[in-house]
Amino acid sequence: MASVNPPQPTSTQGFNLGRAVFGEPIATRDLPHQAISNFIGLAVFASDALSSTAYATEQILVVLVAAGSGAFSVAIPIALAIAALLIILTLSYRQTIHAYPNGGGAYIVARDNLGELPAQIAGAALLTDYVLTVAVSIASGVAQIASGFHGLQDYRVEFAVAVIIVMTVVNLRGVKESGRVFAVPTYFFLIAAFIMLIVASYQYLTGHLVPVVMSSIPDQIPIGMESLGLFLLLRAFSSGCTALTGVEAISNGITAFKDPKSNNAAITLTWMSGILIILFMGFTLLARYVNAMPSYSETVISQMARAVFGNGSPMYFIILIGTGLILLMAANTSYADFPRLAALHAGDGFLPRQFTFKGARLVFNWGILILGGLATLLVVFFKADTSALIPLYAIGVFLSFTMSQTGMVVRTWKLRNMKPGEEIKTESTTLRYTPTWPRQIMISAIGAIVTGIVMLVFIVTKFTEGAWFVTLLIPFLVFVFFRIHHHYENVAHRLRINGHMPVRHSGPVKSLLLVDNVHLGTLAMVDYANAMNSSWKAIHIEVNPGSAEKVKQKWDHYVGSAPGGQNGELMIIESPFRRLVEPLQDTIRAELAEMNDGYLNIILGHLVMDTYWEQALHQNSQMIFDLALQNMERVVVTKVSYQIHHLRPSETQEMHTLTPGDVGPVTPHA
Amino acid sequence: MASVNPPQPTSTQGFNLGRAVFGEPIATRDLPHQAISNFIGLAVFASDALSSTAYATEQILVVLVAAGSGAFSVAIPIALAIAALLIILTLSYRQTIHAYPNGGGAYIVARDNLGELPAQIAGAALLTDYVLTVAVSIASGVAQIASGFHGLQDYRVEFAVAVIIVMTVVNLRGVKESGRVFAVPTYFFLIAAFIMLIVASYQYLTGHLVPVVMSSIPDQIPIGMESLGLFLLLRAFSSGCTALTGVEAISNGITAFKDPKSNNAAITLTWMSGILIILFMGFTLLARYVNAMPSYSETVISQMARAVFGNGSPMYFIILIGTGLILLMAANTSYADFPRLAALHAGDGFLPRQFTFKGARLVFNWGILILGGLATLLVVFFKADTSALIPLYAIGVFLSFTMSQTGMVVRTWKLRNMKPGEEIKTESTTLRYTPTWPRQIMISAIGAIVTGIVMLVFIVTKFTEGAWFVTLLIPFLVFVFFRIHHHYENVAHRLRINGHMPVRHSGPVKSLLLVDNVHLGTLAMVDYANAMNSSWKAIHIEVNPGSAEKVKQKWDHYVGSAPGGQNGELMIIESPFRRLVEPLQDTIRAELAEMNDGYLNIILGHLVMDTYWEQALHQNSQMIFDLALQNMERVVVTKVSYQIHHLRPSETQEMHTLTPGDVGPVTPHA
Repeated sequence: MASVNPPQPTSTQGFNLGRAVFGEPIATRDLPHQAISNFIGLAVFASDALSSTAYATEQILVVLVAAGSGAFSVAIPIALAIAALLIILTLSYRQTIHAYPNGGGAYIVARDNLGELPAQIAGAALLTDYVLTVAVSIASGVAQIASGFHGLQDYRVEFAVAVIIVMTVVNLRGVKESGRVFAVPTYFFLIAAFIMLIVASYQYLTGHLVPVVMSSIPDQIPIGMESLGLFLLLRAFSSGCTALTGVEAISNGITAFKDPKSNNAAITLTWMSGILIILFMGFTLLARYVNAMPSYSETVISQMARAVFGNGSPMYFIILIGTGLILLMAANTSYADFPRLAALHAGDGFLPRQFTFKGARLVFNWGILILGGLATLLVVFFKADTSALIPLYAIGVFLSFTMSQTGMVVRTWKLRNMKPGEEIKTESTTLRYTPTWPRQIMISAIGAIVTGIVMLVFIVTKFTEGAWFVTLLIPFLVFVFFRIHHHYENVAHRLRINGHMPVRHSGPVKSLLLVDNVHLGTLAMVDYANAMNSSWKAIHIEVNPGSAEKVKQKWDHYVGSAPGGQNGELMIIESPFRRLVEPLQDTIRAELAEMNDGYLNIILGHLVMDTYWEQALHQNSQMIFDLALQNMERVVVTKVSYQIHHLRPSETQEMHTLTPGDVGPVTPHA
Repeated sequence: MASVNPPQPTSTQGFNLGRAVFGEPIATRDLPHQAISNFIGLAVFASDALSSTAYATEQILVVLVAAGSGAFSVAIPIALAIAALLIILTLSYRQTIHAYPNGGGAYIVARDNLGELPAQIAGAALLTDYVLTVAVSIASGVAQIASGFHGLQDYRVEFAVAVIIVMTVVNLRGVKESGRVFAVPTYFFLIAAFIMLIVASYQYLTGHLVPVVMSSIPDQIPIGMESLGLFLLLRAFSSGCTALTGVEAISNGITAFKDPKSNNAAITLTWMSGILIILFMGFTLLARYVNAMPSYSETVISQMARAVFGNGSPMYFIILIGTGLILLMAANTSYADFPRLAALHAGDGFLPRQFTFKGARLVFNWGILILGGLATLLVVFFKADTSALIPLYAIGVFLSFTMSQTGMVVRTWKLRNMKPGEEIKTESTTLRYTPTWPRQIMISAIGAIVTGIVMLVFIVTKFTEGAWFVTLLIPFLVFVFFRIHHHYENVAHRLRINGHMPVRHSGPVKSLLLVDNVHLGTLAMVDYANAMNSSWKAIHIEVNPGSAEKVKQKWDHYVGSAPGGQNGELMIIESPFRRLVEPLQDTIRAELAEMNDGYLNIILGHLVMDTYWEQALHQNSQMIFDLALQNMERVVVTKVSYQIHHLRPSETQEMHTLTPGDVGPVTPHA
């Protein structure tokens, strides 16, 4: 076995735009060194969950406003209920993180314990939600910043799209560097938010907290006259539950942490949930005390910051920018998780294999690009309006919560028959006996039931506003996933060697040159055909009546017929409908019928230009032929390229002595 | 010379979507039979010119409103000046039609008499304007219809884009059928418009013509306080000159007429101009008498029809629909001319050759598609607002008028030294002596000077509103045309056989099989390599560390080494950066260096799926390799396809007994 030394990535010379933007390639063996610390991990994986506090309170008020501003006081018990839900989720997900040290996303947990269909459902739900996370976070982030910088109001969509593009590029560079990039804004926001809550508490306790002047809030959402019924309460609750999106992010990304991965991930999760509860409750209370009003063009965060620090004060802008930045960065959670999850699906054959390929920088290029593209579509379609996106959001997350925790219940139930010290290997992990299993099951079961109910509430209360779309989309995605899986199984079956040996062909190889005109590129094809040392002939498809005669003359003059053989013959085929492919296919069929076995080798000439734009000036029919011939058995296609380079100045002089049109790619083949 | 019978188009079986939409293919020899009568010719070629009366008067008023509604009376002398200009143009273009019976567009006349650069300028100008004709006509047509059907106001852009798509498809079917489609609306409009003018005349003469109630006109353009200076007058005049766009259409399309083509075309042109003058003057007078006011959402035509027939009356809607339809159909003039002109440019090597290829229905598919695409962009970008598009419009037409008539002056000047009966052959036509040449020169010269001045007035008065763009675009296009021409000359020079004979290569041919995994597709490659009866070896690029060992084992088991030869050897090449192309190129270079002459034949396997979506599930790296290898001399690429078909139901059973992952396209090559 011969082995050739691998080329060094630095062997490419000169400036390379791709590398300047995406960084130097990283070798596969460097993979483990890209792990991140808890401090960076919190920034990378928690920004989604924490940032949702920036819109969750507001979304509760947006719903409650239908029952008048008096209903706003209900926001506090709703927030408390959501906080309780978060505590259950956190306890449940800590168990998952420890049980699945190699990454315990809903997909893996469901596949391991519930089977393939639940796993695909969980995966489809999560993939959908990652895309929405990017769209919602960026839409809200842009809204925060536009609250303070009114000139941006008209350019929210453009701004949001630009942010998605930058984020996509940053993530194509790789996770560690994106961690570094995103740590600063996350901690910037946390510090700013805590300062606001502390100052506000002080003001409140000393009686100096002044509400926002009602008339100073622009574009307020009109106050409604509905009564505060159960349906409205549940709608407000489900809107607020968007605060919980992103809690699962860490459990998907355990492998990105430093060893011991599970412990570090669990610690980071607990910190995250604690911070999340403080922020969410703090913001909801503060919104209440400053009489914040939902508005189309000023966020609640902006109103609170105005009330606490005064309009136009430096801290006001710091709060806005910090909130805006963490929201924009929150989208990054999805950039870490979406490609990982897509790669898992693809590895199991439920998504195109392309999602499993790591690029030069050890990231899943395809996943990142698809995520960026879909999020851009959503932002453009919904005009970067957070409230319009919310009904589509969170359904997927709560569905995956339910699947994941149901999986944990099933898993832990197996422990009832196990003895201390006993272990069972499952596909993804090892099941170890713990005496606390009854308590674990209870936590998981409560989590599964509560999140399942929340999901149903969400679907019912938001159905007509957009939830119907996601409700249809997820089953459709699952269907597509299984179709893809079926395809890969089919291919594997068809390619299997043992079992059924196919008809195997032997020689002879006969070649057919496709000739459009006679020029130097044609001679290159003839040279190769002669070098092959087997029989060949040429054909010309006459698309323009009369062109064949000229080609025939040139052929006879420059190529001629080889002495004593079939080689060198030029066959003319008329094509009155100006088709190229069909006459060729018919000729090939006729030739194959004359041969008992063996191959017909179609030799196509291809003029290669120095630049892409020059290449576009030629019809490049080689690709069309290539596509048309690939379905024919016993037919192989050989491409003989002929490189056309730019003329040197000395040659340009000579060129102008040419009679134009005498030779050159004037026929459609070229 | 062997000759194969051409296939019949009907040989394709079953339902074909392409044919259902675009029609059965038409053989090249049927080309002359697609000629059109004068009656159809007027509909096809005159709709542009006639339809411009629907906005020309309004555009004059839109400018004059800046000087208050009192200035509107100036519209009548302005319209008279434009009518005089039209008479000059008509006389001049009749001469051109007779002088150039094979089509005397500005491009041909300029090329024949002034040279290549003026011809390219004229062509660039016309191509630009054809695109604008589509955009302006459709924008205005949609505005007419939305004047009466207010529900459409918010969907003007969508409506306009839908119309462009339908029109593109209709034109891809071929010119005769589009003539039929467009005759009905053209004559419908003419009849409706004449009825309106006759009824209005009767009402005026009997004193029953009632002006529109000012307050009933929605969204009026605010009345300005400017004084009615020369600049404003010239702006109004140049806006009104859009009425003259389309006059040149017939001279470009002479060959579409029945024999005698020139006479028929000239007769049609005269009819068209007569009708155009009556409509334009009639509409301008009527607009004045009914006190029409320019508005953002109701067209002047709508206001006139309301005044004459009463709001909501059947005739009101007939006028609107007729005007809307002829405008929408007017765009069709460009669908007839743009592809023809682009094909002329392309035939001379100034545009991509693809523009010269006639499709299955004898139309220039590329030209039609490009025109539709660019017009869509304009309509979307300018939000289907006619007034916003007008400053870009007409410059190109007037530039081409000037070039064409200057060409005719130069041409006719040659007659001064000729005797009766004498003839001179030029590139495109034959120059015959006529005793009336001094009068002819005078007409052409006046036309050239006047249209040249109008163009300058247009550029100066509309420069800041958008004319700057076209003023820069036309020289840029001319530059691009010459770059393209230079490229084709370069290629022709490089491909020329006599003069410099290239280094010609002979054998041996050595093959290199690119192996990703060992399956039935791989065996097909091996079979072909063996059938070629020359030396070969295989290489595997190891992207995932460890994968090579498995491939090597399977290779040894299923392929083995051929006894006593180099054939059958599998070389493993490491690729730590997960690159595929660069390691292959390096290996090829090393192999080539070992050979004195001869070819390296790279054999690539390709799995062919039954459907496109299945094909997309495989990385299709064959295309990437293909592209990367085409720049290497002495390297040819052979593609061995292996067809994967869907499993029959009986096989599906069997499939599920497979161990997944054992064989199949799991590595990135597949």
